[in-house]
Amino acid sequence: MGLGVVGGGVATTLIDQSLSISQKIGLPVNLKKILVRDLNKPRDSNVPPGLITTNPEDILADPSIQIVVEVIGGTEPAAQYLKDALSSGKHVVTANKEAMAKYGPELFDLARQNRVNLLFEASVGGGIPIVGSLMSQLLANDIQSIRGIINGTTNYILTQMADQHSETDFHQALAEAQQQGFAEADPTNDVEGFDAVYKLSILASLAFHQRVSPDDIYRQGITNLQPQDFRYAQELGYAIKSLAVVTLEQGDIRARVYPALVPVEHMLAKVDGVYNAVEVTGSLCGQVLFHGRGAGRGPTTSAVMGDLIDIGRRLHINQPPIPVIESGHTLRVQSIDDLETQYYIRLNIADQPGVLAQISKILGDRSISIASVLQKDTFPDEQKAELVITTHPARDASVQEAMRLVAELDVVNQVSNMLRIEG
Amino acid sequence: MGLGVVGGGVATTLIDQSLSISQKIGLPVNLKKILVRDLNKPRDSNVPPGLITTNPEDILADPSIQIVVEVIGGTEPAAQYLKDALSSGKHVVTANKEAMAKYGPELFDLARQNRVNLLFEASVGGGIPIVGSLMSQLLANDIQSIRGIINGTTNYILTQMADQHSETDFHQALAEAQQQGFAEADPTNDVEGFDAVYKLSILASLAFHQRVSPDDIYRQGITNLQPQDFRYAQELGYAIKSLAVVTLEQGDIRARVYPALVPVEHMLAKVDGVYNAVEVTGSLCGQVLFHGRGAGRGPTTSAVMGDLIDIGRRLHINQPPIPVIESGHTLRVQSIDDLETQYYIRLNIADQPGVLAQISKILGDRSISIASVLQKDTFPDEQKAELVITTHPARDASVQEAMRLVAELDVVNQVSNMLRIEG
Repeated sequence: MGLGVVGGGVATTLIDQSLSISQKIGLPVNLKKILVRDLNKPRDSNVPPGLITTNPEDILADPSIQIVVEVIGGTEPAAQYLKDALSSGKHVVTANKEAMAKYGPELFDLARQNRVNLLFEASVGGGIPIVGSLMSQLLANDIQSIRGIINGTTNYILTQMADQHSETDFHQALAEAQQQGFAEADPTNDVEGFDAVYKLSILASLAFHQRVSPDDIYRQGITNLQPQDFRYAQELGYAIKSLAVVTLEQGDIRARVYPALVPVEHMLAKVDGVYNAVEVTGSLCGQVLFHGRGAGRGPTTSAVMGDLIDIGRRLHINQPPIPVIESGHTLRVQSIDDLETQYYIRLNIADQPGVLAQISKILGDRSISIASVLQKDTFPDEQKAELVITTHPARDASVQEAMRLVAELDVVNQVSNMLRIEG
Repeated sequence: MGLGVVGGGVATTLIDQSLSISQKIGLPVNLKKILVRDLNKPRDSNVPPGLITTNPEDILADPSIQIVVEVIGGTEPAAQYLKDALSSGKHVVTANKEAMAKYGPELFDLARQNRVNLLFEASVGGGIPIVGSLMSQLLANDIQSIRGIINGTTNYILTQMADQHSETDFHQALAEAQQQGFAEADPTNDVEGFDAVYKLSILASLAFHQRVSPDDIYRQGITNLQPQDFRYAQELGYAIKSLAVVTLEQGDIRARVYPALVPVEHMLAKVDGVYNAVEVTGSLCGQVLFHGRGAGRGPTTSAVMGDLIDIGRRLHINQPPIPVIESGHTLRVQSIDDLETQYYIRLNIADQPGVLAQISKILGDRSISIASVLQKDTFPDEQKAELVITTHPARDASVQEAMRLVAELDVVNQVSNMLRIEG
């Protein structure tokens, strides 16, 4: 069985493991070519130099290569490689969440037309078998919701901010994550939620058997969080986690990625550091939670090799490809305007009488009922104070509108933060 | 596609879900017969009376029934039904942990010989997709250990004992579990660890690709736990959980089911009530934890239907059966004599000078080093005290021997408990 690999990252491990893979498949596996960008980049010593190439045709045009593994990520040139490989009748195993989220339907069509497998366990949750479980073991369930912590970088940063007695601000925590190798030099993709949006697009599409595009997912990054948000959240009995959530309510899908308050006793509140977790709620299974390492060479290789063994076993006995996402359902994917949830609102206000009355009126006029009020960190010299409000469940668009009006009040210096409460 | 069901439990749900199953498989599913013991038992109204039978031949001899679902549990007559169904060339989906653990090799042989599928996701962990994940997505890993809470009844009892400020003794907690329907009238199978042993036998066999028999698994029940054990454990920073553990150390497998102390910050310590959790440590994926409902009609149906859809899809496109457990490896399955772990020991001693010296000598002579000593609950009137010792890692057989000798000391009234510390 001939194998081509796009990307040097997991190639070493695949070479180390090739005997084990062959045994598990029941056929010898032959890693034939590794496509890289730079021939001269230093590599682990176990990679035979003859395997390395910079010419994609060395993989795509080689009829002895039946399976292509892609681990470079990003859209270009990766997505083109994926399309070309499928069009050439090669099975594909990919870790590429961005390409799967953006070009999923086109890639699935190509796989179907060419009667080849397209597997992508490594695209979400690293070594956590969430993709395969949704495609197979949990398939009997009508999925009601998925709530996950699926970006390790942001979870590491939020854990640091929460642990260090809330004295670390976002930029310090980010710098530390970068130093530890848990955040990239340009962290935008992670801290602004794009990475989690791609992954949630994949999970939601699997769960609801129809495409949920990244464009349909509400996105809010974590850059706006301040140390005091963690202090107040803790005082109120919550942790702050960047959640990826998709829910089915009254036949409509709603998907969002945002930092949210999670009750401290909830399992998701206990997911720390670079770990990922995904909680699936199904009509039959109830809540099932998966927890593990969401990134890194080992977990990625675990997922890629699992897919590889799956395809290899099928080839071995001439099985047809695994059925890909059906598109039977056509549920509407809604914005979060009509989402009903609780809110945490932090305001910087003038420390004078009557402020709360003005704010409550704006909220009350929009049927937003206040659950708790804390006035904190009063600075008498500056005649400023911090006001933390939590609400009972309210309509998202109403709360957003209320915050715009509250921000315009003379007695309000700033709407410092507005976070949803989940769970 | 014709379906026969052995056992009335999930039949209602299967009837309700048959349209959904048919859609997911792509073929109409036809539930033809439900085998029950008692025709006159009251049943949900949606079961057509013509489907019910007490004659197994109505399923086994019907050539239009291609798949048999077995959910009655226990060895006889269930195991015979399983053998007969496989021998008749019928695919089998079973929730029967006892039959799979005791007769697994024979059943797998029958499945192989008759070229049919034998799937058993529901046998361990209810709606948690642990069986399928070990058989597929995590297959690339060399498994290093599995640690799980896989008996909901004992976990419910232990959670009650821990939560109620350690004022509830085992018998009260058991009675309450029975009242809530979480424990059976004869609770032996659960509280003495047999149920967990069967399940661990299945998980270990999947993880290590060879049979791990229930007879090879060390078993200790939870009936010996006292309220003060929970108090002392908490004071030392541990929870008490009934764990099912299999580890691979220096090429040897060691498997055991016992109540153990788990550090409170460990994810397994946070698994409460009737929930189950399984933590798999693999060479590539690291630690992956699965958490969810381990029993009940919904979770069982989720797992059974997942297997059913899997088989149905394969039949639809004429796929050969899923490969069953290989028997390539032949690792030795060892007793826990050479297990090296830490211990928690609770002794009832005479409250007089020199006692600790005598105990320490016995431990020291067997290279068992003490990590902490607490002298608690002294009863001066009776001249008795309670001594709680934790040790550094020591050999299990040595600690067991030391406890026999300690029990014989004049100054020791009783070795009240000896628990392992895991994690």
